[in-house]
Amino acid sequence: MSDFVLDWEREKRTGVAEAVLCEGKSVAQLEGILAEAGERRLLLTRLDEEKLAKLAANFRAGLDFDPLSRTAFHGAPRAPAIEGAGVVCAGTSDLPVAREAARSLQFAGFAAPVIADVGVAGLWRLMKRLDEIRAFKVVVAVAGMEGALFSVIAGLVEAPVIAVPTSVGYGVAAGGRAALRSALATCATGVVVVNIDNGYGGACAAIRILRHSAAP
Amino acid sequence: MSDFVLDWEREKRTGVAEAVLCEGKSVAQLEGILAEAGERRLLLTRLDEEKLAKLAANFRAGLDFDPLSRTAFHGAPRAPAIEGAGVVCAGTSDLPVAREAARSLQFAGFAAPVIADVGVAGLWRLMKRLDEIRAFKVVVAVAGMEGALFSVIAGLVEAPVIAVPTSVGYGVAAGGRAALRSALATCATGVVVVNIDNGYGGACAAIRILRHSAAP
Amino acid sequence: MSDFVLDWEREKRTGVAEAVLCEGKSVAQLEGILAEAGERRLLLTRLDEEKLAKLAANFRAGLDFDPLSRTAFHGAPRAPAIEGAGVVCAGTSDLPVAREAARSLQFAGFAAPVIADVGVAGLWRLMKRLDEIRAFKVVVAVAGMEGALFSVIAGLVEAPVIAVPTSVGYGVAAGGRAALRSALATCATGVVVVNIDNGYGGACAAIRILRHSAAP
Amino acid sequence: MSDFVLDWEREKRTGVAEAVLCEGKSVAQLEGILAEAGERRLLLTRLDEEKLAKLAANFRAGLDFDPLSRTAFHGAPRAPAIEGAGVVCAGTSDLPVAREAARSLQFAGFAAPVIADVGVAGLWRLMKRLDEIRAFKVVVAVAGMEGALFSVIAGLVEAPVIAVPTSVGYGVAAGGRAALRSALATCATGVVVVNIDNGYGGACAAIRILRHSAAP
Amino acid sequence: MSDFVLDWEREKRTGVAEAVLCEGKSVAQLEGILAEAGERRLLLTRLDEEKLAKLAANFRAGLDFDPLSRTAFHGAPRAPAIEGAGVVCAGTSDLPVAREAARSLQFAGFAAPVIADVGVAGLWRLMKRLDEIRAFKVVVAVAGMEGALFSVIAGLVEAPVIAVPTSVGYGVAAGGRAALRSALATCATGVVVVNIDNGYGGACAAIRILRHSAAP
Amino acid sequence: MSDFVLDWEREKRTGVAEAVLCEGKSVAQLEGILAEAGERRLLLTRLDEEKLAKLAANFRAGLDFDPLSRTAFHGAPRAPAIEGAGVVCAGTSDLPVAREAARSLQFAGFAAPVIADVGVAGLWRLMKRLDEIRAFKVVVAVAGMEGALFSVIAGLVEAPVIAVPTSVGYGVAAGGRAALRSALATCATGVVVVNIDNGYGGACAAIRILRHSAAP
Amino acid sequence: MSDFVLDWEREKRTGVAEAVLCEGKSVAQLEGILAEAGERRLLLTRLDEEKLAKLAANFRAGLDFDPLSRTAFHGAPRAPAIEGAGVVCAGTSDLPVAREAARSLQFAGFAAPVIADVGVAGLWRLMKRLDEIRAFKVVVAVAGMEGALFSVIAGLVEAPVIAVPTSVGYGVAAGGRAALRSALATCATGVVVVNIDNGYGGACAAIRILRHSAAP
Amino acid sequence: MSDFVLDWEREKRTGVAEAVLCEGKSVAQLEGILAEAGERRLLLTRLDEEKLAKLAANFRAGLDFDPLSRTAFHGAPRAPAIEGAGVVCAGTSDLPVAREAARSLQFAGFAAPVIADVGVAGLWRLMKRLDEIRAFKVVVAVAGMEGALFSVIAGLVEAPVIAVPTSVGYGVAAGGRAALRSALATCATGVVVVNIDNGYGGACAAIRILRHSAAP
Repeated sequence: MSDFVLDWEREKRTGVAEAVLCEGKSVAQLEGILAEAGERRLLLTRLDEEKLAKLAANFRAGLDFDPLSRTAFHGAPRAPAIEGAGVVCAGTSDLPVAREAARSLQFAGFAAPVIADVGVAGLWRLMKRLDEIRAFKVVVAVAGMEGALFSVIAGLVEAPVIAVPTSVGYGVAAGGRAALRSALATCATGVVVVNIDNGYGGACAAIRILRHSAAP
Repeated sequence: MSDFVLDWEREKRTGVAEAVLCEGKSVAQLEGILAEAGERRLLLTRLDEEKLAKLAANFRAGLDFDPLSRTAFHGAPRAPAIEGAGVVCAGTSDLPVAREAARSLQFAGFAAPVIADVGVAGLWRLMKRLDEIRAFKVVVAVAGMEGALFSVIAGLVEAPVIAVPTSVGYGVAAGGRAALRSALATCATGVVVVNIDNGYGGACAAIRILRHSAAP
Repeated sequence: MSDFVLDWEREKRTGVAEAVLCEGKSVAQLEGILAEAGERRLLLTRLDEEKLAKLAANFRAGLDFDPLSRTAFHGAPRAPAIEGAGVVCAGTSDLPVAREAARSLQFAGFAAPVIADVGVAGLWRLMKRLDEIRAFKVVVAVAGMEGALFSVIAGLVEAPVIAVPTSVGYGVAAGGRAALRSALATCATGVVVVNIDNGYGGACAAIRILRHSAAP
Repeated sequence: MSDFVLDWEREKRTGVAEAVLCEGKSVAQLEGILAEAGERRLLLTRLDEEKLAKLAANFRAGLDFDPLSRTAFHGAPRAPAIEGAGVVCAGTSDLPVAREAARSLQFAGFAAPVIADVGVAGLWRLMKRLDEIRAFKVVVAVAGMEGALFSVIAGLVEAPVIAVPTSVGYGVAAGGRAALRSALATCATGVVVVNIDNGYGGACAAIRILRHSAAP
Repeated sequence: MSDFVLDWEREKRTGVAEAVLCEGKSVAQLEGILAEAGERRLLLTRLDEEKLAKLAANFRAGLDFDPLSRTAFHGAPRAPAIEGAGVVCAGTSDLPVAREAARSLQFAGFAAPVIADVGVAGLWRLMKRLDEIRAFKVVVAVAGMEGALFSVIAGLVEAPVIAVPTSVGYGVAAGGRAALRSALATCATGVVVVNIDNGYGGACAAIRILRHSAAP
Repeated sequence: MSDFVLDWEREKRTGVAEAVLCEGKSVAQLEGILAEAGERRLLLTRLDEEKLAKLAANFRAGLDFDPLSRTAFHGAPRAPAIEGAGVVCAGTSDLPVAREAARSLQFAGFAAPVIADVGVAGLWRLMKRLDEIRAFKVVVAVAGMEGALFSVIAGLVEAPVIAVPTSVGYGVAAGGRAALRSALATCATGVVVVNIDNGYGGACAAIRILRHSAAP
Repeated sequence: MSDFVLDWEREKRTGVAEAVLCEGKSVAQLEGILAEAGERRLLLTRLDEEKLAKLAANFRAGLDFDPLSRTAFHGAPRAPAIEGAGVVCAGTSDLPVAREAARSLQFAGFAAPVIADVGVAGLWRLMKRLDEIRAFKVVVAVAGMEGALFSVIAGLVEAPVIAVPTSVGYGVAAGGRAALRSALATCATGVVVVNIDNGYGGACAAIRILRHSAAP
Repeated sequence: MSDFVLDWEREKRTGVAEAVLCEGKSVAQLEGILAEAGERRLLLTRLDEEKLAKLAANFRAGLDFDPLSRTAFHGAPRAPAIEGAGVVCAGTSDLPVAREAARSLQFAGFAAPVIADVGVAGLWRLMKRLDEIRAFKVVVAVAGMEGALFSVIAGLVEAPVIAVPTSVGYGVAAGGRAALRSALATCATGVVVVNIDNGYGGACAAIRILRHSAAP
């Protein structure tokens, strides 16, 4: 019996397909997983370029890899893309996580525009894009450092705000703890939170909302 | 100029009406707030019975108070109640928080059935109620101690799961930190988290989902 | 030799007069300190009403006590009040700390208007008062919970922002840790921070800035 | 006098033989230990491949090394293997720790089947193997991230569950803290816990139970 | 439907009967639970005397209450008591927790002698009782402060040592964190750990070992 | 639309020009930012030498780089330099942070003499330089380890003391947490604090004080 | 067999007599201990006045109680008092701990002058007493808040400095953590540390030094 | 003026000569310090081999380097060595820190025998060496993991025990926090503590005790 048991029924049961967190898995384990997947669709997250380069060529060939977000698609994204989700991102350094969220949404069949560099230190940047943001049915907000963006956005829009704190920052912000606490301690309503740097998790929650909560 | 500035436009702007966290506010401050509210609807949370008893009789008379959840309605709940949200609760000790979520939903015009005492130490209890839980469009899950309930539910349903960790527990669970971390670190997808004991916050997120994300 | 050695030269040396933190001191110790002070000016902080009530009547009579901030003036505030500082406060629950800052400024001879309840969950409240805030030479900002106010203000004004995180909040915000980290991790420039609930400390820094840095 | 004093009587005194944690020891120190061991049996843990490669060939030749678990046997495992223990493992990334437990049991003369990839996000995987797990006299459960597996298993079986939290995960799960706290805060009974990533320690406890507690 | 769902099958499924943590439950909730229990056996833990005094007389009459451990038996302990477990306790202040463990064992039908005040600051006290301790099949060790007792005992006996850290201590030991970490970080083998002050949990693990692991 | 939105109006709005934290940004992102900047002035912080070396030659040529502080000037510092700020530094290891503060001040048009190696373990070193320090209108104090310097200086001068804790130290001082807490918990008045290693932030606060608070 | 085992040989074995930490012990337990002590000398620490008042009159009569330090002597202090130790204390609020140290020394037969209120915010206070402090063979230094006193003293004297951090302070200083870390992270040499508020422990170390290390 | 100010009078003032922590200093800075030192004696700590190799040959030639402890003597140790101190060490992995303590003592003119590998998991190892340990006037005890050694030794000897916790261990022991807390929370008397891995600091305290406290 193999050491991994992929949960191919997950998509049917929970609305989100099986994904593989590549961090902490060996090249051999990943090849085993891809072999078992065969033609089935699979999202790979936290796949760094060195590990990708070590995969056997046939496996590598089947992957649509994005270096910034370290995600790979095994199989094509679902189509056509369903509208409603948007990703909003505080700073340039938060982009890898924002893009992990966007790519995860995209693979699952959802449009995922990214609105970048709207951190609150220059509030006008956010205000300028507010109409676009207000049009989303669900907002995935990505921010590190002190994470003030989460509260500010939630005070300005009607949609639920899924906060994805990032590990961007140093000192007391190192590892994302300050941003995480800000998101949880928010004085605004309607903010919900996922783990630090978990763009994939933020996307999954958005998918459940759009697919299940918003189902007629 | 008064020391408080109630945000009467909040409901219009974000879909959730103004609420007052009574903890940390004096009786005089609360009376001032109620006076300003006048006929406008207001939800009071974390109002303990001693503080309630000290309010001037005319203010107290206008409140529909629930001691278990320490919430009070100033004004009537919206009607008719919209279906879709459900509150699931691990143990008897988590009920005050579960009920804060349910009452907050109710006040905002949403039905909020509570499914109680389905902790994972006796998994059959959860399994017995699974069909009911699967029928919800959004699940507010309330659990303390190790918070294993969040992952187990999210693995079994399609709806987004809003985890409300509670401060129930002692030792490493004291203050809700173990449950909070479990919710954030979940191996399941589709779990989003609010602050410890924040039943109100869990409800607000559910309301945004049902009102905004699920709007046609 | 007595057990306390008051630093009567401190005002001359550092620009801020001696003050006594009453928390953790016995009634007998406080009476000893007041006796030694005699006619000299002294600010008392964190003096709760029960302790005040236990002081000998002659000592109590000499104090100008403010219950909200738990401060007392022994001797009159300096006059006339110098303009330049302003206290900005996120929520009603933060008022005791904001007022400790304002009273400390006042006792030292500085005007200290308080602009209250401008938390970022309803950004319009802050925007409405922005011109007033921009007129200050130094801003003492007081906020608990997630402390997003610090970053937002600092992005909007030119003055240095002295952040005083408060212990207002529960769960991950309990004790003021989330607000403190937010203040330190801010993405905005020009924010400096003092200890949690340290309104007095925030005032002292403002005083040094106005008295020493701004001296011709 | 040498710098290390091996405890050759430990097996007799406590039922578990001497083992050497290689992490933090230099190659020279390890060679000294192996030289002193001579023909005596010794388990090496946390021996990484680079350090192994640097050992003198004669020492290396005497070791049965397993790269996944980073364990090496110096001397043969005891035979025949005694039944009763089982290792249950949440995800592929937890396998190195699960295997450290299994190898430690094996070296001490105990059978140690590993049941892998039965994390609670897909509960059916665990349910499918439940009969096998129920047959164990003692269960060593290995899980990272939120560690919900510990509570779920303990609610389903009669055997004591030795929880080995792993450092698998990121954000709030980084370093294994979330899984550790979950194991300690469990709402189920019969869970006992060892240090993070301590597969060897989990095995030692199982050995004491099977050898001493279960002795007639 | 009632708010609590007692798990009457738990004893059959896991070997340990249902118990009720009274902390955090209201008097009304406890009465409801006792009413539902009727003739069935139930262990109550963390029941303080004030809450006990408030129970209706008929419920109180049915309880065998022990004030030191704050435990109550609803129904008689199983008989005859099975030998094998022993409770070892570092200091006088740890006795309430040690006794919670002993009473929990007793109620479940196990003898549970307590060996008290054998802290390592005076090692001779432990040595004097060592033969008794070595005779146990499983040791429940209870200690606060730095918890050095766990490592020392585990180095001297063959039985598994279930460490129950207590919240005894101040400063860095406050709340039991130092003792907990000591237990987990032990340099000795065969130590397993439960939550701080969780005498009941320590007993449950011992029961599983004696009932299930040691079953022929 | 590009992924970064530089805040060119920041200097006008807050008195401090736009700066770029290079840590966590890719070479491509930095080149994009420099391209957009064109002739406009920009401060780069936390730029390590390897990343600098990878920048296209034309961009590198335009930078005045200082390896100790890892800062680069894009454009010339403002002139003439305004007097008033001083940087005081505890030990040799704190110099990189002290210099980041000094360079940031310098770029903005302020003189920034550095007084180094005046740690309190040899108090005479500080006393010898006291007159120089007392002449500053604002002091940026940089210290790691236990950060006692902050309190000692603030007790000796009249200027506000901006404490910049550094990550210098090991054990409990690792990462700068001990120094940070010392700065916040100071028994002296007039100390304000910025994030660990945030020399740039300390400088920005000093600039606001000198430019705005001290403006006539 | 009784539940406590006093270590009457401890004084002979380690140079410091048996002492009883009263916190966490019941009145009945304390009476049992005093009964067993009989004529033998015993130091009681952390005995609060309410508990003292509840002791049977005959036990209370035999105690020399000091309310500030919450210590009681059962039996007379040793005489004549040996010179060499000194207690130095930062602020009035630290006096209870300083006095616990002084009383513990005194009971064991050592002189223990207390030099109070020499905190570093007003360095001249310390300098004025420096000659006295330099005359001690061992210094017990007691300070809360940021604990800068430890480093400053150790830089000025030749004696070993036993730092006793106190729980005086709020915010990040609450519970004594900031002072503890300062003491451990000191940039000065010759500082050793005991637990927060552990005046007794500081005294015991001084006694071992004076009795054993300094023995001819 | 140079960036470093060596404290050449420190030995005279405090009994311990100037030492240089090489970690965090550049090669250029170290060369500057050695140049300034000239013929004066200097102890270098935490000097790793790579940095040593990069020093100019003339500086390297003047150093007596020990790789295990990463210490170097610039100048000869004082002679003749004074007896009285002893270093006791729990495990092989703690030896680098133990040796840093021993070398620091040696350089200052004190004999410093090291008794290694006497961890409490095999108590007989400690007991076998107990007479030697009891002969020391001051014991420097070095241990990582759970640090039980500190309490056990202090219960057996009369000398003061200077605990040096090490960062040896993983999981909850990582970084030395568990050992540090154990040392501080000890139930034994006479234990004093220095920072994690601070062998040098432990030695300095021992030197002050032997040189100053024990001076006639």
